[in-house]
Amino acid sequence: MRNFEFYNPVRVCFGKGEIAKLSKLIPKGANILLTYGGGSIKKNGVYDQVTAALKDFKVIEFSGIEANPHYETLMKGVALCKEHKIDFLLAVGGGSVLDGTKFIAAAALWEGSDPWEILSRRSEVHVEKALPIGTVLTLPATGSEMNGNSVVTRWETHDKLAFDSEHVMSVFSVLDPEVVFSLPQIQIANGIVDAFIHVMEQYLTFPVNAPIQDRFAESILITLIQEGHKVLADRTDYDTAANFMWAATMALNGLIGAGVPQDWATHTIGHELTAFHGIDHGQTLCIVLPGIMKLKRENKKEKILQYGERVWKIIEGTDDERIDATIQKTVEFFESVGIKTKLADYGVGSETIQKIVDRFEKRGVKAIGERGDITPRDVARILELQLK
Amino acid sequence: MRNFEFYNPVRVCFGKGEIAKLSKLIPKGANILLTYGGGSIKKNGVYDQVTAALKDFKVIEFSGIEANPHYETLMKGVALCKEHKIDFLLAVGGGSVLDGTKFIAAAALWEGSDPWEILSRRSEVHVEKALPIGTVLTLPATGSEMNGNSVVTRWETHDKLAFDSEHVMSVFSVLDPEVVFSLPQIQIANGIVDAFIHVMEQYLTFPVNAPIQDRFAESILITLIQEGHKVLADRTDYDTAANFMWAATMALNGLIGAGVPQDWATHTIGHELTAFHGIDHGQTLCIVLPGIMKLKRENKKEKILQYGERVWKIIEGTDDERIDATIQKTVEFFESVGIKTKLADYGVGSETIQKIVDRFEKRGVKAIGERGDITPRDVARILELQLK
Repeated sequence: MRNFEFYNPVRVCFGKGEIAKLSKLIPKGANILLTYGGGSIKKNGVYDQVTAALKDFKVIEFSGIEANPHYETLMKGVALCKEHKIDFLLAVGGGSVLDGTKFIAAAALWEGSDPWEILSRRSEVHVEKALPIGTVLTLPATGSEMNGNSVVTRWETHDKLAFDSEHVMSVFSVLDPEVVFSLPQIQIANGIVDAFIHVMEQYLTFPVNAPIQDRFAESILITLIQEGHKVLADRTDYDTAANFMWAATMALNGLIGAGVPQDWATHTIGHELTAFHGIDHGQTLCIVLPGIMKLKRENKKEKILQYGERVWKIIEGTDDERIDATIQKTVEFFESVGIKTKLADYGVGSETIQKIVDRFEKRGVKAIGERGDITPRDVARILELQLK
Repeated sequence: MRNFEFYNPVRVCFGKGEIAKLSKLIPKGANILLTYGGGSIKKNGVYDQVTAALKDFKVIEFSGIEANPHYETLMKGVALCKEHKIDFLLAVGGGSVLDGTKFIAAAALWEGSDPWEILSRRSEVHVEKALPIGTVLTLPATGSEMNGNSVVTRWETHDKLAFDSEHVMSVFSVLDPEVVFSLPQIQIANGIVDAFIHVMEQYLTFPVNAPIQDRFAESILITLIQEGHKVLADRTDYDTAANFMWAATMALNGLIGAGVPQDWATHTIGHELTAFHGIDHGQTLCIVLPGIMKLKRENKKEKILQYGERVWKIIEGTDDERIDATIQKTVEFFESVGIKTKLADYGVGSETIQKIVDRFEKRGVKAIGERGDITPRDVARILELQLK
């Protein structure tokens, strides 16, 4: 096991009816910016529960945070924070609203020349302070409710970039599984595969003798497979929704990634497919991961075999046959929840591949992945494997 | 799954060499009370590493915190805090030092009439503030390094009582697996079974459809079995020590117990065996748990069968046969790491049983366990099953 630091101070309030606790969770007298997306929270009753709990607070609303939240949009939220002397942000939504609110929280107190550098100069500058955030999660998927990660898109340049800071971790996150009851099927499916691939990014690398992390990762994968099919069959079963929700949170809260190598090439490549074609984040991951498993089958051999055995019970055949069967099972799982895994399924052809390679080269990306050996040329080969 | 709140803000710094980070982890200019036990940290090099890291701080030492820390001892630490205007406690030790330091931290700021009521009136009064604590763990076992629990013994009355508060959770905990290299065999064995039974208290109850919690619990049990035997065979293997250490921390940091029923009857009864006879905490647990599994085999049937199947691969036979085999495997595991499981092994006879029953009745304890159905009379039956 490698040395690590694990720190996750998010207070998780989990279960039905927990939204009512907001009035106690938010500091008395706070000036709140209530951030949300396109208004689905007004249809599913969450908005009413939240505003009822906030009746004794001064609340400014900031709606319209879109999927893959735009820097241009978020900067309007930053202006509202300054104008209204906001001292607490309450994010009510899924990963995009949460990620966008984290950026607002950091940008509002940013002392550098331009808040864009939080994203564009991530490796050089660091977020040292941010407005406090509370979260009411409406979509299990990204894990943003219990981590310090944020991904933001600059619309004018099609740049989709990330930053992370412990200062933007939520003070609290309310997770009420009943929000799942009214989600569209595609959002549930995207959430299942998003959480699944978050685990894979931290697990399907190379072994470093870390059995707790490995078995926790496999626990989440198995739960997502079992509960994923159940929640798609009946999204109003409370326990199933709760298990799906808790699995998605545990998939990316720092725990399974502590002390082990991490990959994240699937996300890095997937972000470009979203930036160029607007393909849903979860869908892009299901396109890219099988390509990486195929190209890096030797590099990842020990963990693919372990994953195949423990998660899919694949124990027969030669190593090569088991790896093939394991990749096949993974693809079948994505397809079984309704997510297609080839570029052609989304109308994307080979011309996009060169654009993505050019983008990586222009940014000076030498190589990605847990061994730092996936070059821009390898990115092209991974995407070519997934053309159709 | 039940509703739950999960909050664990302890910053874990894990790995060899991490003790050197103390100088950055403790607030600049802090007046530190350095708490430790009988001096083993002076033999294994930890004391030297700690004092080297603290060279720029004002440090008052408070040594002599004994196993099952005594209220009488700890109150001397409280006096030191007041005398020297201590504003940071650094606990260097195992569970006893950590638990004792938590009590000092709470008692130093206690505004009630007598700090003993933190323990004696646990259900009525609450710790609302405490001095900040940092921890350097020297013995993987209790999980105290990543929770807010503390158990303290009042020597004059043989009362061993507990309290818990998020205010006494460590600000940081340094976990350097190399401390295991010099531990006596019995302390390693006690640590393995202590962590194992912490998991069992939160797992071997009744099912509430919480697959993440169940599988995480089983992950820790399997790891403790595999790594436990390895660390006893070679305590200087770094990776094995690291896996043992991380398993023990994960066993009692709130995660696997979130949203599920919990038992804790084994601990409640075991504490009395320590209070009356000074038997090591881990040893008392290995005596009591098999008795509870035998008496409550019907109540705990579904989880015993699941535990037997997933942890011990027991899948043959009738339910009764599988339960017998599972209890047998559990006892064999405790014995295999060198911990005896019968009262006679420790020279304890039936006269102690009545004393324990009397004690529970005198305290007004009606019933314990996850269903609240283990009466003082049942406690007697449990201990009678474990006489010899």
